[in-house]
Amino acid sequence: MEFDAATLVGAFDRAGIVAFAFSGVEVGVRRNLDVFGLLVMGVVTATGGGVMRDVILDRLPLILAHPDYLAWAVGGATAAAVLIWRRARYPRFVLRVAEAGGLGAFAVAGALAAVGAGLGWSGAMLLAIVTAVGGGVIRDLLADRVPVVLHSEVNATAAGIGGLASWAAYDQSTSLAALLGLSAAALVYSAGAAFDLRLPRPAGDSRARRSKA
Amino acid sequence: MEFDAATLVGAFDRAGIVAFAFSGVEVGVRRNLDVFGLLVMGVVTATGGGVMRDVILDRLPLILAHPDYLAWAVGGATAAAVLIWRRARYPRFVLRVAEAGGLGAFAVAGALAAVGAGLGWSGAMLLAIVTAVGGGVIRDLLADRVPVVLHSEVNATAAGIGGLASWAAYDQSTSLAALLGLSAAALVYSAGAAFDLRLPRPAGDSRARRSKA
Amino acid sequence: MEFDAATLVGAFDRAGIVAFAFSGVEVGVRRNLDVFGLLVMGVVTATGGGVMRDVILDRLPLILAHPDYLAWAVGGATAAAVLIWRRARYPRFVLRVAEAGGLGAFAVAGALAAVGAGLGWSGAMLLAIVTAVGGGVIRDLLADRVPVVLHSEVNATAAGIGGLASWAAYDQSTSLAALLGLSAAALVYSAGAAFDLRLPRPAGDSRARRSKA
Repeated sequence: MEFDAATLVGAFDRAGIVAFAFSGVEVGVRRNLDVFGLLVMGVVTATGGGVMRDVILDRLPLILAHPDYLAWAVGGATAAAVLIWRRARYPRFVLRVAEAGGLGAFAVAGALAAVGAGLGWSGAMLLAIVTAVGGGVIRDLLADRVPVVLHSEVNATAAGIGGLASWAAYDQSTSLAALLGLSAAALVYSAGAAFDLRLPRPAGDSRARRSKA
Repeated sequence: MEFDAATLVGAFDRAGIVAFAFSGVEVGVRRNLDVFGLLVMGVVTATGGGVMRDVILDRLPLILAHPDYLAWAVGGATAAAVLIWRRARYPRFVLRVAEAGGLGAFAVAGALAAVGAGLGWSGAMLLAIVTAVGGGVIRDLLADRVPVVLHSEVNATAAGIGGLASWAAYDQSTSLAALLGLSAAALVYSAGAAFDLRLPRPAGDSRARRSKA
Repeated sequence: MEFDAATLVGAFDRAGIVAFAFSGVEVGVRRNLDVFGLLVMGVVTATGGGVMRDVILDRLPLILAHPDYLAWAVGGATAAAVLIWRRARYPRFVLRVAEAGGLGAFAVAGALAAVGAGLGWSGAMLLAIVTAVGGGVIRDLLADRVPVVLHSEVNATAAGIGGLASWAAYDQSTSLAALLGLSAAALVYSAGAAFDLRLPRPAGDSRARRSKA
């Protein structure tokens, strides 16, 4: 039996959608949004990166063509809203794992879409980053704060590395490209989360202002 | 003589553009923008939702293909700026009616565009919402505040219901779809405005922060 | 030997990309972003307007098709980050000249793209403005402030005038259109910078709030 990389990526894609929807709802609750606002935050965070990628590539966004993805996003956002509303505890560790896999799956999807459109390594890297962090950027714009990916996360670095890995392995096989990209991005992300890695920044600027929340 | 639903939707479309341009200029004045800034706020609020819809559907935005729409938006924004500048009173009730009709017309335009692109009910609902509230979201992003539609308006709910109504009636006739969608959205919006309806939200979060203005 | 307007526009295009990348990094440093964040701010400010134009016109963004542009943006952002990090002085006057030429080249590129898509004078003016100021608007949204172009710059006015000049001269020759558009936009921008010109605004509003930084 042949191993099927597409199934693996698809599974992590959906896991990532649910995990990203959670993060959108969490930010929305801090802004005192109503249930529609929370739903929007969840869906937009989960699917915004893919929509940005498809708009850039002049394709009909997947979320419109495949309502299946919309259902996972709505389901994840609803679950998050209910859990937060009832002040329930939820296993953050599971969410972190889903986020790591989701980030990798999103990076692979972006890189393979770029390759499919005839783009080179820079396009694969850029679209991997857009797909993986675009949703979070829109989430933070809606929540009126500086996107966290710009100052305290390694998500974009992880997605870019994953995208490059996918691009490099694509000539061998699509399965290998998917596996390598997913693992590379998830590993860099997990290392960043585990060791609280941050990229350096020009220091000591007294005018410096961080995000408002 | 046959009743022409397209004419009705077209009329409310233009009324909505003018009313939305007013709302953009009102927000811009609170941010102390210059005349170009006010014009941009008016035009973007009035036409941003349609541009987002057309970008998503890979169509040339209507505002570029039909300068007629641009003229209504510029006219509405100019009228609003002059009235506010001269501290004139203007009939808010008329604006509210134009906004209700405009919201309905925008929702119908979004839903019918989705149907025309071969999408199902979820696409019709999503694009009705994008068309109807997209301009206001861009307005609030430019004004550096959390979009009001996410925490205190029923506009998106109204647009979504209107979009679903249009989609459901489309098999009967386009005119019926337009009429039903427009009325449903305008009714929900008007009920929301009349009774100050708000969607529920997870309460009692002491970290909650509302929009800055 | 025939004078080649395309070469001139191309040169100012690249000069503008570098200058705009500097402005993005400067704003990013004030927000205490990390090196990835600074790179994103530089690249997005330099190329965001062109991406918005190409997305609206349903074309693959130039930055994806021509990695050459991406290289200039990354180079400009890196240079800016290194200079600011080392607290080096850099010649602001040279940046201002590059910005003036870049604004003109961006306006010409927007107007000619509109003419190529069969649009009229309003489309040429709108896309000249989008191309020239779109990057700065995205920069300010990411930095969580009201876009400066809306309250204190004449950049958009300059770009709009340049776009109209290009459109008007296009029937004579493309070279003339490029030269006229570039000169008109650069002149209006330079006059604005030299005399600190600002557009009027409705005054005395005690509720007025300016950008946060």
